[in-house]
Amino acid sequence: MFDIQNIRSQFPILTQTVNGKPLVYLDNGATSQKPISVIESWEKYYSTINANVHRGIHTLSQLATEEMEVSRRKVQKFLNAKNDFEVIFTKGTTEGINLIAYAVTNLIKKDDEIIISYLEHHSNIVPWQMLCERTGAKLKVIPMDENGILQLDFLDQNLSERTKIVSLNQVSNALGVINPIEEIIAKTRANSNAMIVIDGAQSVPHFKIDVQKMDCDFFVFSGHKMYAPMGTGILYGKEEILRKLQPFHGGGEMIATCSFEETTYADLPFKFEAGTPNVGGNIALGAAIDFMEKIGQENIQSHENALLDYAQKKLLEIDGLRIYGEKANRTGVVSFNLEGIGIASDVGMILDKLGIAVRTGHHCTQPIMNFFNIAGTVRASFAVYNTFEEIDILTEGVKKAQRMLS
Amino acid sequence: MFDIQNIRSQFPILTQTVNGKPLVYLDNGATSQKPISVIESWEKYYSTINANVHRGIHTLSQLATEEMEVSRRKVQKFLNAKNDFEVIFTKGTTEGINLIAYAVTNLIKKDDEIIISYLEHHSNIVPWQMLCERTGAKLKVIPMDENGILQLDFLDQNLSERTKIVSLNQVSNALGVINPIEEIIAKTRANSNAMIVIDGAQSVPHFKIDVQKMDCDFFVFSGHKMYAPMGTGILYGKEEILRKLQPFHGGGEMIATCSFEETTYADLPFKFEAGTPNVGGNIALGAAIDFMEKIGQENIQSHENALLDYAQKKLLEIDGLRIYGEKANRTGVVSFNLEGIGIASDVGMILDKLGIAVRTGHHCTQPIMNFFNIAGTVRASFAVYNTFEEIDILTEGVKKAQRMLS
Repeated sequence: MFDIQNIRSQFPILTQTVNGKPLVYLDNGATSQKPISVIESWEKYYSTINANVHRGIHTLSQLATEEMEVSRRKVQKFLNAKNDFEVIFTKGTTEGINLIAYAVTNLIKKDDEIIISYLEHHSNIVPWQMLCERTGAKLKVIPMDENGILQLDFLDQNLSERTKIVSLNQVSNALGVINPIEEIIAKTRANSNAMIVIDGAQSVPHFKIDVQKMDCDFFVFSGHKMYAPMGTGILYGKEEILRKLQPFHGGGEMIATCSFEETTYADLPFKFEAGTPNVGGNIALGAAIDFMEKIGQENIQSHENALLDYAQKKLLEIDGLRIYGEKANRTGVVSFNLEGIGIASDVGMILDKLGIAVRTGHHCTQPIMNFFNIAGTVRASFAVYNTFEEIDILTEGVKKAQRMLS
Repeated sequence: MFDIQNIRSQFPILTQTVNGKPLVYLDNGATSQKPISVIESWEKYYSTINANVHRGIHTLSQLATEEMEVSRRKVQKFLNAKNDFEVIFTKGTTEGINLIAYAVTNLIKKDDEIIISYLEHHSNIVPWQMLCERTGAKLKVIPMDENGILQLDFLDQNLSERTKIVSLNQVSNALGVINPIEEIIAKTRANSNAMIVIDGAQSVPHFKIDVQKMDCDFFVFSGHKMYAPMGTGILYGKEEILRKLQPFHGGGEMIATCSFEETTYADLPFKFEAGTPNVGGNIALGAAIDFMEKIGQENIQSHENALLDYAQKKLLEIDGLRIYGEKANRTGVVSFNLEGIGIASDVGMILDKLGIAVRTGHHCTQPIMNFFNIAGTVRASFAVYNTFEEIDILTEGVKKAQRMLS
């Protein structure tokens, strides 16, 4: 049974007040809050078995290593990856994408092409621009329409043997639009040999992922948007592709042998995990997966979809409120503005006075904002612990902001 | 007053038993344990103000941002950096060095020279080998003698206008040798325009750092070896040099404007901090600095030096025990082997049965091991909470191992 009060009681921060009002936290697209089981798993690690992993034969080091590898296998199962060594621990989505963009450098030549979409976060734009600068490759962008829906006929015209990478998010952080990645991957496979990178930062918190079924080459996400601590993240990569890549960071753990004349690299996953990993954080990421699986990812998804439907219905009752991507298939996010009120942050500040945390601004997606010719939006984004009552409070807050700012 | 029992009582893990014996944790060179104030600072962050920083105008986001910036200024003061924006949050030393090695790529040309030392950890060797591969630069290595002391006349012969980077650790992780970096920096300044990178991973836990007095260009360290959580670290860089460098990771926060045609980069420190930072970890790093400063860094240093002197004296009473770097100026580490017992890990396993955690192996410094023609050493490394009684237990344990393995 889906018991929202029981779920909420697991999040210590939700009892906080902000400006004298109960906190209504609707900034989950930026980062989610953490359940007590995640916080305690981290605390227990440091209070009982903290040690550096892999290099040690003493008991604590072995326990720390085992626990971190248990967590790696939880992630493997969570993503349905074929092998645990295809799961690389990172510090987050941004590092994951940059790791790929650096590690493929040797495989990219002048006039090769990299395709991204108009709906990307800066973290899935800038690393590819930097790769293009290093290699002379060209960046191409799948356009979108005024509903935030990608125009896939672009792929029919642009995929070719020159396409070396297709990288896009599964869900847009700015609008919550769910991209048709199955269709995009099918087209890409049919018309190129490109490597396919999926940014799952905004999808993993909301629905079940199956990287084998999806048939992507890489899948990256952050722990902190799915109930785990900041400073954690995952890069999944298909074995055969990971083996072809150059390492990213040089350092401890990623070498097999090291001399000043020649260094050889370690096997997967360690080749991509130079330095001391965030052991406590990586173990807590496993606890976050346990938390989600205990509730059931289907239950999370249906609750969040119901919240989104309700929020959309209530907000659209407000005259002059526009939701960006309103007609698109979406999850977790409503991104909107009020007619005649140019500055989203003014709305955000009034909501904050009412204890409501939303994000305002360009959401690290300036191209989307430029497309709509706006400086930013107000974005409310949902997690499993949000309630219909909170949507009511948000709606009343937006009405109040409209009255005050009109 | 330096009250060791009071200090120990602040570390929950030190009450653990291992194999039925009280834990004697002498693996601090790999990672230190964490005081309750650090654990609680992290826990409090997630229970009260967790939010994504910078991008948000809501109260939690502002509080999280403020707390993280307070921590940045604590680091600034801790290092005596001139400006807070010269302090970049990383995930650790390895990332710090790799960041520099990638960010200087455009400034390095074929036949330029990079000088490191024989005493480096793999994390201060491999990133430069990778940079040499990218650019055609050459790696040169300051040799050492059989005491683990660097031979600085090498610099007189090798520093030149071709030298673009001099990178070395302040303290060797494998041997604990304190390198004469003042002299090395003076020679480098006098004979080249090289950028000077100091790996402070093994010095910061043990003595006071002053980057301005030191006159290095970069100084990197990890949080987790100085009582802070894993997944935290600092890259200090001189303003004028940081401004000259290309960014490392592309993504959110590090851009000023982003379009598909052109992206411009944000100001310091954000240019080098793409993506969601490890806010909770970075705040806890500030708590670790508070912990050290409350005890007093001079007190930590003198206690650890006394431990080292005592350990060296006691261990050298054992027939056939050799300490590597015995005659060098050292801190925090005794690295040794027993004559006739080829495999350090055998000693480590016997010590583990007695509850004693030491590190055995090559300590990510294969060149040093090759120099001494050994596979590895037994390394005991100290932190502020270690005691003279623990050294006695270690010494008795080593004697027992010698009896069992002879």
